[in-house]
Amino acid sequence: MVLVAPRNPLNIGAAARAMANFGFTRLRVVNPYEVAFREARSAVHAAPVLAAAEEFIRVADAVADCELVVGTTSVGHRELQHTLRRLESGARMIRSRLAAGQVALLFGSEKFGLSNEDMSHCHWLMRIPTVDVDRSMNLGQAVAVCLYELARDSRAAIGRTEELKAAGAADAEQITALLVEALERSGYSKPLTEASTKVKVRRLVRRLNLTARDAPVVRGMLRQILWKLGA
Amino acid sequence: MVLVAPRNPLNIGAAARAMANFGFTRLRVVNPYEVAFREARSAVHAAPVLAAAEEFIRVADAVADCELVVGTTSVGHRELQHTLRRLESGARMIRSRLAAGQVALLFGSEKFGLSNEDMSHCHWLMRIPTVDVDRSMNLGQAVAVCLYELARDSRAAIGRTEELKAAGAADAEQITALLVEALERSGYSKPLTEASTKVKVRRLVRRLNLTARDAPVVRGMLRQILWKLGA
Repeated sequence: MVLVAPRNPLNIGAAARAMANFGFTRLRVVNPYEVAFREARSAVHAAPVLAAAEEFIRVADAVADCELVVGTTSVGHRELQHTLRRLESGARMIRSRLAAGQVALLFGSEKFGLSNEDMSHCHWLMRIPTVDVDRSMNLGQAVAVCLYELARDSRAAIGRTEELKAAGAADAEQITALLVEALERSGYSKPLTEASTKVKVRRLVRRLNLTARDAPVVRGMLRQILWKLGA
Repeated sequence: MVLVAPRNPLNIGAAARAMANFGFTRLRVVNPYEVAFREARSAVHAAPVLAAAEEFIRVADAVADCELVVGTTSVGHRELQHTLRRLESGARMIRSRLAAGQVALLFGSEKFGLSNEDMSHCHWLMRIPTVDVDRSMNLGQAVAVCLYELARDSRAAIGRTEELKAAGAADAEQITALLVEALERSGYSKPLTEASTKVKVRRLVRRLNLTARDAPVVRGMLRQILWKLGA
């Protein structure tokens, strides 16, 4: 990750923190506002990423050992001379290139973004799909979103949830019986309508999606209520 | 988007900025550090999002009109009582529910995240897939990443299943109160353990995934049981 001419120590720190969060380690800073860089590095919680950050004067030197150089932009008023990709597809291309060699991802300064000169070092540009009326993102947040997308696991979008184990049918039926009993004793249902009440309650209990852990708790609650209701 | 007990005006501002970037408008703040909230709102570039932010004292009120309440966590030391989804799959579920009604996405304070009490209002939890050694994200960056994923290439989302309309948070809270009352009257819970029982019952009721149609039925059942149990 290459930050070009960053001005705000909080943003440099935030960029480093996002790198640590998503497992990226090599931070390079080109021509930073010196005070900001010094402040960011001396912050109490300066991440190892920040401590190991390298400083360069020119973009050319910062990306010299990289096989692919990608610039980020919010594409405002300037006319672009580059291919522009949305983050979703650009990140996929970057991932496939990371196996073969180093990739540099460039972010410009908070105020002006990357200059035409900076962009001239890039193979193509990438933009975060923000809404048209409000395109300019905070630097630290833009870095976090890009690194998240790079680390994103598209297979995880499908399943792999840590779901709680569901209660079994026997549990559900026991709870149904207890609830029906409680409703009768409390006068909610009449003997005449008992059969249809039972069917309704059974359906209701099934829709509740009780977990295996909750089933005995609910059973205990109902038993206690039944005990109090009396015969 | 609901920020619970945020402390840092920069983070409140950053959250609002990310909302504007990704086209979200309704920001709610629960019990913020007052100075921070005031500072954030009076910042020169305070976005319209921030100007329109609503303030609440309790989480229950902030989510009362929402059909789905999702908490965010970095899952550190605490043992979770909820289903936990990765952002990639959780966001897909949220998108599919946004068509039918309002969804609340909760973020905890910078230092402690969401409390167990806060989480008890949630149907399930979501985590950003950070690396294990460095899970804790900056609040503004976490918000940006979540909203990016929610706004991400929605055409890629897989078809929506026809779900029954879910009960609202206000319904769930009413049912929680009635059940707690019934448990007290029946002697299931003691005054001494009342607070922890309430939190457990609230979580239980949220896990039940009550439908909008079932909520009044369950409420009626509990009222009748309460009437029979007496004072």
